[in-house]
Amino acid sequence: MVAIARLCSSILRRTTHQFQIRKHSLLCGDIDRFNGVTIDLKTQLPTTTSTADFHKILKESLHVWKSEGRNAIWLHLPIDYGRYIDIAAEEGFQFHNAENNECLLKLWLDDREDPTPRFATHQLGVCGVVLREDTQELLVIQEKKSQFTTWKFPGGLADLGEDIGNAAIRETLEETGVQTEFASVIAFRQQHNHPSAFGRSDLYVVCRLRPLTFDIKPCEHEILQCCWMHVDELREHLQITSLTHRISNIILYGLKHGFDSIDFTSEDMLSPYKGQHFTAFHRNLPQL
Amino acid sequence: MVAIARLCSSILRRTTHQFQIRKHSLLCGDIDRFNGVTIDLKTQLPTTTSTADFHKILKESLHVWKSEGRNAIWLHLPIDYGRYIDIAAEEGFQFHNAENNECLLKLWLDDREDPTPRFATHQLGVCGVVLREDTQELLVIQEKKSQFTTWKFPGGLADLGEDIGNAAIRETLEETGVQTEFASVIAFRQQHNHPSAFGRSDLYVVCRLRPLTFDIKPCEHEILQCCWMHVDELREHLQITSLTHRISNIILYGLKHGFDSIDFTSEDMLSPYKGQHFTAFHRNLPQL
Repeated sequence: MVAIARLCSSILRRTTHQFQIRKHSLLCGDIDRFNGVTIDLKTQLPTTTSTADFHKILKESLHVWKSEGRNAIWLHLPIDYGRYIDIAAEEGFQFHNAENNECLLKLWLDDREDPTPRFATHQLGVCGVVLREDTQELLVIQEKKSQFTTWKFPGGLADLGEDIGNAAIRETLEETGVQTEFASVIAFRQQHNHPSAFGRSDLYVVCRLRPLTFDIKPCEHEILQCCWMHVDELREHLQITSLTHRISNIILYGLKHGFDSIDFTSEDMLSPYKGQHFTAFHRNLPQL
Repeated sequence: MVAIARLCSSILRRTTHQFQIRKHSLLCGDIDRFNGVTIDLKTQLPTTTSTADFHKILKESLHVWKSEGRNAIWLHLPIDYGRYIDIAAEEGFQFHNAENNECLLKLWLDDREDPTPRFATHQLGVCGVVLREDTQELLVIQEKKSQFTTWKFPGGLADLGEDIGNAAIRETLEETGVQTEFASVIAFRQQHNHPSAFGRSDLYVVCRLRPLTFDIKPCEHEILQCCWMHVDELREHLQITSLTHRISNIILYGLKHGFDSIDFTSEDMLSPYKGQHFTAFHRNLPQL
């Protein structure tokens, strides 16, 4: 939401670190290119404002926004303004998202169906398939706290803002002590209703990594067992999931026929958003 | 978080649709396998409970949970319980996530670093690369409200719980009126700090679709222009992004050498989570 104008049809007067709120003043917000208004409540209301006064100010502000034909009102609140949340809910606001000490409430005012996007729908998991090509061994672990006693590849959730390949390298190092470098993505999967995703879906990206070290120093907290296991042993093991079996077969194919025919390689590219980059993944084709 | 036990060291007495809260009663919660406690506040407190009484009950409950060695407290609240949020914040609770009429607060009590996962980090965008192999034309659009006047492939955000391929088919139909079927994933990209992702990252999956119909009926609200454009014209067009150029080259390669060497095909597989399925994407190799 890019602010392109400033709405301030208010009689609210504000000086640095001081607020003078009159009853019946209005909230000030930024207008975005979709005709919505975004308000940062902590710059607008001192914490001493009573919930009754907030309710009056909100009602009168909504009256103005409706008369101006605004379609969406976005209200940012810090968590210590929580007492205003159920007041806003009385006027139809709902949570859009919240994290740590901030939440964002939204009210859609238009007759049309609300087209504004919901908050992030996926967590992103990664694993590192670390292959010793000389011995045809893969680095595998058993987790201490998993509900399944299976052999699997080291991995976990990507941090916010972390690249897929870097997340696989970090998780592999944390869990096994083995240092690696990124080679390619060889598979991914989408799983809805993932039990530890708080109602969201899970994308799991399978990264092929090249080992730079070979000594295993497993994480004491997380890892029950960790070893280098021959790909033939792993793919025939009874304690693996269907996806691990599938990945083992892909690795076996790569060992026989080369990984050129398997890999989605990655490339850093310039984004159309100014100054930003993204990482693209696709087959590495000779004529591109 | 799977509940495996019930904590109820409380003197709170509750009958269906009736609450009898005494001062100094305790909150009841489910204990999960990570030694955390999850409380659904609307089953525990009548809305008439004063914030002062809630504060007392919360403090005493926290005292018990700490003495029992619990490590995380998860507090589900409906939005009309908002006035209790800043009280919980005084005791150290923060938002974990919130949407619509519900929020989840979390308090981490252990000395160790908090290992519980944050909420979803990615929105998932898709596009449909619809190719007429007979004419070597691709279905392209210009959006009305985009900040960039570029030719691009139809697409948009996947709904919560929607499969990648189905989202590409739906968005293509909504924007262009053209019916399609899923063929493969030919590329994806990860972009952090995406300007319309509310601080989260964006994964964008490029789906190759086969057209089932050819007449264009563009969406009046969203689409400025829509046409079938020859792949050579598109890849040399000045009004395309670097990713659209790259995808055009991949399509050209596929037209010359076959898409077998390009595609990540999809397969529905059984999940280890009982009764669930997932979709796996990887190269379609003959020996798997």
